[in-house]
Amino acid sequence: MTRLSDTETGRLLAQVDGSMAIAERLFGDLAEQTADGGGVTRASYGEGEQLAHDMFAGCAKDIGLEVTADPAGNSYYTLPGSDRQAPRVITGSHLDSVPKGGNYDGAAGVVAGLAAAAAIKEAGIVPAQDIAVMAVRSEECGSWFAGEHGGHLGSRAALGLMKPSELETAIHLGSGKPLGAQMKDFGIDPQRLLDRPPSLNRDMVKAYIELHIEQGPVLEAKGKPVGIVTGIRGNARARAARCLGEYTHSGAVPQDHRHDAVLAAAELLIDLERETLATLAAGGDIVFAAGKFYTDADMHSLTKVPGEVGFTLDIRSIDKDTFVRMSEFATARAAEIEKRRGVRFEIGAFAFSRSTVMNLGHRRSMEQGCALLSLDAMDIASGGGHDAQEFESCGIPSSMIFVRNANGSHNARESMEMDDFEKGTRLLAWMLAGVL
Amino acid sequence: MTRLSDTETGRLLAQVDGSMAIAERLFGDLAEQTADGGGVTRASYGEGEQLAHDMFAGCAKDIGLEVTADPAGNSYYTLPGSDRQAPRVITGSHLDSVPKGGNYDGAAGVVAGLAAAAAIKEAGIVPAQDIAVMAVRSEECGSWFAGEHGGHLGSRAALGLMKPSELETAIHLGSGKPLGAQMKDFGIDPQRLLDRPPSLNRDMVKAYIELHIEQGPVLEAKGKPVGIVTGIRGNARARAARCLGEYTHSGAVPQDHRHDAVLAAAELLIDLERETLATLAAGGDIVFAAGKFYTDADMHSLTKVPGEVGFTLDIRSIDKDTFVRMSEFATARAAEIEKRRGVRFEIGAFAFSRSTVMNLGHRRSMEQGCALLSLDAMDIASGGGHDAQEFESCGIPSSMIFVRNANGSHNARESMEMDDFEKGTRLLAWMLAGVL
Repeated sequence: MTRLSDTETGRLLAQVDGSMAIAERLFGDLAEQTADGGGVTRASYGEGEQLAHDMFAGCAKDIGLEVTADPAGNSYYTLPGSDRQAPRVITGSHLDSVPKGGNYDGAAGVVAGLAAAAAIKEAGIVPAQDIAVMAVRSEECGSWFAGEHGGHLGSRAALGLMKPSELETAIHLGSGKPLGAQMKDFGIDPQRLLDRPPSLNRDMVKAYIELHIEQGPVLEAKGKPVGIVTGIRGNARARAARCLGEYTHSGAVPQDHRHDAVLAAAELLIDLERETLATLAAGGDIVFAAGKFYTDADMHSLTKVPGEVGFTLDIRSIDKDTFVRMSEFATARAAEIEKRRGVRFEIGAFAFSRSTVMNLGHRRSMEQGCALLSLDAMDIASGGGHDAQEFESCGIPSSMIFVRNANGSHNARESMEMDDFEKGTRLLAWMLAGVL
Repeated sequence: MTRLSDTETGRLLAQVDGSMAIAERLFGDLAEQTADGGGVTRASYGEGEQLAHDMFAGCAKDIGLEVTADPAGNSYYTLPGSDRQAPRVITGSHLDSVPKGGNYDGAAGVVAGLAAAAAIKEAGIVPAQDIAVMAVRSEECGSWFAGEHGGHLGSRAALGLMKPSELETAIHLGSGKPLGAQMKDFGIDPQRLLDRPPSLNRDMVKAYIELHIEQGPVLEAKGKPVGIVTGIRGNARARAARCLGEYTHSGAVPQDHRHDAVLAAAELLIDLERETLATLAAGGDIVFAAGKFYTDADMHSLTKVPGEVGFTLDIRSIDKDTFVRMSEFATARAAEIEKRRGVRFEIGAFAFSRSTVMNLGHRRSMEQGCALLSLDAMDIASGGGHDAQEFESCGIPSSMIFVRNANGSHNARESMEMDDFEKGTRLLAWMLAGVL
């Protein structure tokens, strides 16, 4: 199952241990140079992201990797293989962050790739094909670009998944410029994106593997340093749902004459939560939240029956049938509540985002690797989206390694132990050098 | 049970019919002169209210009533009785309105009083004691005065229930002035309020009776033109409750690791509604609403588990035990939900407002009057507060007559039929001339 001898494996692990000094220096420099209010800010196609790409290029050169870029501005730090024409293996993640986010979300995957490549090189192992560490642009574009775009701008551009119109319709929240103009400010020519074929496709890329901090508390709660990602949850979302009842006097109108929008929508939420828990009890994968739920500040009052409430629904599962079925359950329950309470729900059509199943061959290999390397890992679903899903959607075998993280992601308090990071990097290096 | 002969009753009813012309003119002039965006605006201790007092004084003089005012600016239009030293009977209501409110809320009671007094006079009936039609100031002060005050400013001032400090702490929302300064702008000297004993007390006032439009849909739904008010609901209120959970990633955090503030508070509301319906099924009187319920616009997101929600609770009943017990139920349920969901409720201490039972003797007389006058009336609880509760709290026998109203109150669409108004005014005139 692995191409590595026991001796080579031993040498590789020792070199991973040694390359942790590179990793610590990169994390430290990044945190210092992109610091913002306790956390870090590295805007997509912005200053902080560019600074990180420049810093990592320098480090890659020091390690002895080839440094290149594609028309979308994604960086590649390549360790040559014995057959340079063979489809390459890519590892990596993104270097941008949400505003005042954490230092490890994204960057950990690129640092792990550099550390793994350095270790493979120093261990004297020549891979069968090129190993490219990819620093992806603009994975956090949801926090940086308004307007119409399909998300994950860097990886989608590289894979030919971006529509040309997105260069005009995605508007940077910092500068107010469209994506194309924003790229130019950082020396990236958007015309090259339009003129050239996709930089990456399934014929050029043999495999994609991404290390990332877990964005939830599961590994922490289970006492596991590392997780093998089973899939990335898709979702069914209602972004602007409303329940309309009737504003009336909260003292003078009897309970059975009311059309209370808050009570009607609260009933819907409790029904959805009950169905969520039943699905989990039956062994399914699902999460559900109504992140926004608000009466109208111009109309509501202590002494009025509430006549309107706005809310959102976010239902996620790694199983498409589960989130589609739950969205249908929501629509059916709303119709029943409408009839009984004399209210009207405007949930609209749910927006669906596909779920992704991680490559089963990669997962089986990683399980074997964990046994071999004495790594205490567990299977885990990813609730957030990642670049890996774009690679997988193009038919490139793709997988992810999660590293334990104490305080959630997208906030300054995210917390990864270097000991856990090293364990994840060992598994990554072993996969890159011996399996993929 | 009535001092009136059949002949006198017949003459009185005929005169009430005749005095409807006065009523229609007053309603028409009021609507025209205080029109505002489809409804009417008559600010408490403001222009619209003053205009109404001036208009009604002119009408009262035309009818031949004595016109006086008390230090709080309340107007009295008095029909002299045979014993002018005997405790008087007062009927009336308020002449202010909420912003862009309806034309009948308040004014109907003063118009009915004038029409009844005119009819009694024209029927040649001399009452045993003075009958004073009172135009009360500032019943809608909840919509016009911020800061600390005890509500129902005009009637409470007349009855000596207002604290002197309220002249400074109640701040008019239109002018920004304290109540005392606001009074002066309309020629009312607040110093006289401080220097003089209360204008009204239980030794001077034999009875108080107030006609008012119903503020809910009950008479409309039951097909009754007139209601005999059983009592005015008291309430238990939480004005600024919060539920605090934890903001986390709505995809990455498993359902059983969440502390979702919206789901926790929604569960509390559904529990309270269930208990409300059980109380009603057992024959109790209760209404319940959470008029405000809102996540934090600066923090909430489609993709976050909501970490905080603010809400209000308004629980009302004519039975104090009922609303106190329900507030205790809310506190106990919140504590149980806190433990199970790992959230924290900050409901604070409930604010209680006493309930009022209307005088039983008045109610029995009105039932007999309805039979005699062939009026199809029903018992009804008042959900909103009224000046009558202030009179009753001073030991003055007090009662209320509700008139059917199609579209609720405190909005421009309130709708009273003059035919229903005449029926209510007949009952009022009969009570004033023959019973009280």
